[in-house]
Amino acid sequence: MSELSFKKAQKRVHEFISMFEEGYWPPLSMLASIVEEIGEVSREINALEGYKTKKKGADTNYKKNIGMELGDIIFSIICLANYYNIDLEENFELILKKYENRDMNRWTKKK
Amino acid sequence: MSELSFKKAQKRVHEFISMFEEGYWPPLSMLASIVEEIGEVSREINALEGYKTKKKGADTNYKKNIGMELGDIIFSIICLANYYNIDLEENFELILKKYENRDMNRWTKKK
Amino acid sequence: MSELSFKKAQKRVHEFISMFEEGYWPPLSMLASIVEEIGEVSREINALEGYKTKKKGADTNYKKNIGMELGDIIFSIICLANYYNIDLEENFELILKKYENRDMNRWTKKK
Amino acid sequence: MSELSFKKAQKRVHEFISMFEEGYWPPLSMLASIVEEIGEVSREINALEGYKTKKKGADTNYKKNIGMELGDIIFSIICLANYYNIDLEENFELILKKYENRDMNRWTKKK
Repeated sequence: MSELSFKKAQKRVHEFISMFEEGYWPPLSMLASIVEEIGEVSREINALEGYKTKKKGADTNYKKNIGMELGDIIFSIICLANYYNIDLEENFELILKKYENRDMNRWTKKK
Repeated sequence: MSELSFKKAQKRVHEFISMFEEGYWPPLSMLASIVEEIGEVSREINALEGYKTKKKGADTNYKKNIGMELGDIIFSIICLANYYNIDLEENFELILKKYENRDMNRWTKKK
Repeated sequence: MSELSFKKAQKRVHEFISMFEEGYWPPLSMLASIVEEIGEVSREINALEGYKTKKKGADTNYKKNIGMELGDIIFSIICLANYYNIDLEENFELILKKYENRDMNRWTKKK
Repeated sequence: MSELSFKKAQKRVHEFISMFEEGYWPPLSMLASIVEEIGEVSREINALEGYKTKKKGADTNYKKNIGMELGDIIFSIICLANYYNIDLEENFELILKKYENRDMNRWTKKK
């Protein structure tokens, strides 16, 4: 089976959202939704890394939860990108190039 | 040229991070970094959507900035996923399935 | 009854935290906790402002929830401030002064 | 000089905002602004706690910066509270009570 590309994921999210009258939410509302999801992954990571004890009965399957939250965030980032006609692959490549140039002397290169 | 897949992007980020002695940051530090980037995309969207006026001289090329910020966030989400051995494609598929099941009756289907 | 001051609130939080062996969490963990709470207030505001429908059975008493979330955020901000020996009253005054100087010509003064 | 109370701070922010035609921003825009400020405090804390190196020339006076960022966040939280007629003192007291009841057995009481 072929691997899912960013372009294909953006297309599938668009097809999904286009099924509904509501369409994409206003950008500040999509943003608030992303913040909510970042908050959820924060809770999971804080719990996993050990400083914050979860309430009794709360799901302790942290890593699975973190995976789902990250999937959620990717979905929401794609919504925002689609709304503004942003190509994520292209921008990810630009960022990778930026880091390769900028960070090469910022960190300690392995011998 | 073939499209960039999530799996390939995760692999490329891992190769980049693996070049340095420091490796991945501790999870709470990666998280703080994501929060910083979410803050930057918030500023751009708030400015673009018109309620907040940018300081004079600030870059007004909002859409290009939003694209770069989203690319940055994708990079950081991938770092976090790699650290925990999370497959983003797999989790994105789970989320898409969840939405397809849950939201079908939550929104207004187009006729 | 006298009004609660920032200084008194910082003192009361310190007395509370000092009762426990654990004391203040590490700063990045306190930060993750604030992000979690910002996420919760985002969910409430998004719901109240109407774009996101809450799951059935979810509390619809939004304004009361927003009040509690903001109280939570204030508590967590105070923890962070106490950890770094930061005087919130002093910094709030500096910010107010900054806005009074900077924003006077940024917005439309009422006649 | 008397200490600044939450009530007085809420009143002063209201007087400031009321000077302008624009008044309070829409809630989702105030929220995006808070997220931007949380992002800024994240950057400072991440830098201070040592995992992320700041760009050359960046201000290294972290603690002063953190204080200013927290002052900024308090200002923005007060804006949101004022918009919804939320009494921060009252909600802070509720939260303190909640923690005193809930967390007493969650952490290790000092002997």
